[in-house]
Amino acid sequence: MDINEIIKQVTEEVCAKYGGETAQSAGGGDLSPGSLAKYIDHTILKANASIEDVKKVCDEAKKYHFASVCVNPSYIKFVAGQLEGSGVAPCCVIGFPLGACTPEAKAYEASDAASNGAKEVDMVINIGAIKSKDWMLVKRDVESVVNAVKGRAILKVIIETCLLTDEEKVKACAISKMVGADFVKTSTGFSTGGATVEDVRLMRETVGPDIGVKASGGVKTYQDAVNMIRAGANRLGTSSGAAIVSGDGGGEKPHECINCGACRGTCPSGRVQVTKDSY
Amino acid sequence: MDINEIIKQVTEEVCAKYGGETAQSAGGGDLSPGSLAKYIDHTILKANASIEDVKKVCDEAKKYHFASVCVNPSYIKFVAGQLEGSGVAPCCVIGFPLGACTPEAKAYEASDAASNGAKEVDMVINIGAIKSKDWMLVKRDVESVVNAVKGRAILKVIIETCLLTDEEKVKACAISKMVGADFVKTSTGFSTGGATVEDVRLMRETVGPDIGVKASGGVKTYQDAVNMIRAGANRLGTSSGAAIVSGDGGGEKPHECINCGACRGTCPSGRVQVTKDSY
Repeated sequence: MDINEIIKQVTEEVCAKYGGETAQSAGGGDLSPGSLAKYIDHTILKANASIEDVKKVCDEAKKYHFASVCVNPSYIKFVAGQLEGSGVAPCCVIGFPLGACTPEAKAYEASDAASNGAKEVDMVINIGAIKSKDWMLVKRDVESVVNAVKGRAILKVIIETCLLTDEEKVKACAISKMVGADFVKTSTGFSTGGATVEDVRLMRETVGPDIGVKASGGVKTYQDAVNMIRAGANRLGTSSGAAIVSGDGGGEKPHECINCGACRGTCPSGRVQVTKDSY
Repeated sequence: MDINEIIKQVTEEVCAKYGGETAQSAGGGDLSPGSLAKYIDHTILKANASIEDVKKVCDEAKKYHFASVCVNPSYIKFVAGQLEGSGVAPCCVIGFPLGACTPEAKAYEASDAASNGAKEVDMVINIGAIKSKDWMLVKRDVESVVNAVKGRAILKVIIETCLLTDEEKVKACAISKMVGADFVKTSTGFSTGGATVEDVRLMRETVGPDIGVKASGGVKTYQDAVNMIRAGANRLGTSSGAAIVSGDGGGEKPHECINCGACRGTCPSGRVQVTKDSY
């Protein structure tokens, strides 16, 4: 069966199932605030983050026993050193945030990251290839990174849900699972929207129980975290880990809209309580 | 003299000069709308651009005789094929838009792009290294890409002015020139702001007449283009090339704010006439 047949079959199965029944909750266990630490990839990805900013994130991750610290590749060697012996995994992004590099460049970057100590890598899928319906390129793109880090780091594939149709989300997840990714992940946090409960549920339906689903982008409060886990997420990408494990509503007080550009029902920046009808 | 001494000297010289006199205009020649085509890097960099979108940009560039078509690396081979024999250069971005990859990964990506037909590459400098005052890393970062494409492609270094202080801008430009970059460039268009006349003037002051200055981000109208060239730019990155060479005020009619998140005095998206006092 060729790739188009497989994708077609998976897409039809999932879309039919998704229309008919509720996804099973993956997170049925202890969801007390303190127990959520193991779900959290403590994340700092802004271009102008300094080494001091990154060190602070490492210190927090060690304090709260988060799953990982997720940074840009330029900092992964430093982070690996900071986290040594702590049980917190060094994680870095690949082809981030546009996903529009060649498979060869992504593979090189991922291998370089693993050599620098990354135990987890979060790559961005080739979104343009998805939009061009070039499924062979989508497959080769993910496959190249799978092969580059095999046995050295686990691989999460960011599909950037906010830019995809449901059908494209299912296909992206099916291909990622097929070629050996360890996780699918909703968002970069740098595009037009973050994780939604609906997308996490769809992704979990698609990949089944054997691989992970990471919700990222806009996960700012304890309640956000619980909602994502109940929908099927088993990893959360956030810079609000400390607030989440404290059980509170977010680390920053809401203030006036700063036009972050990521407006949805709940402002994913967590910086504003959204009341405008148009949001 | 070590790198810190050189940077210190250049910074002091430029800052002193910049405070005292007006920068010389680089663009003193013909600035009629039609004559601006040769300045324009026709640009499409959004993550979800399809191959059809990219083809359209190539067709426009050939029609108007723009300097180059600037795309993400995943499309550079296709673009090189489309532009063959047209006199329009295939150009692609490297380490884009965060600049937070390792020097090794940027060099690999740049070399890969040149092998795929890129005649120009626009790399993003390591902004985090600038913020960490790790000038040796900044130097090594640019130098690695200079060496990777030497004799194969010209190199522009995006310094992302909106995230830097004036002193950091001068240092980033001085290092880029020192290690052999062909251009310095203001912006990715993916951060908090685009090119300003003041930044272009400061950058031209810093690098002198021997290398290029590219203004990018928010260059949407004929008047924007003329302002940038008068300030010292000799290349413009824009997706509004057709409007610029037609001498008009922009390709799209202003409409209501869509919360692009890049609000400044003049909305860089060109999609909105900004009237709100807070912008």
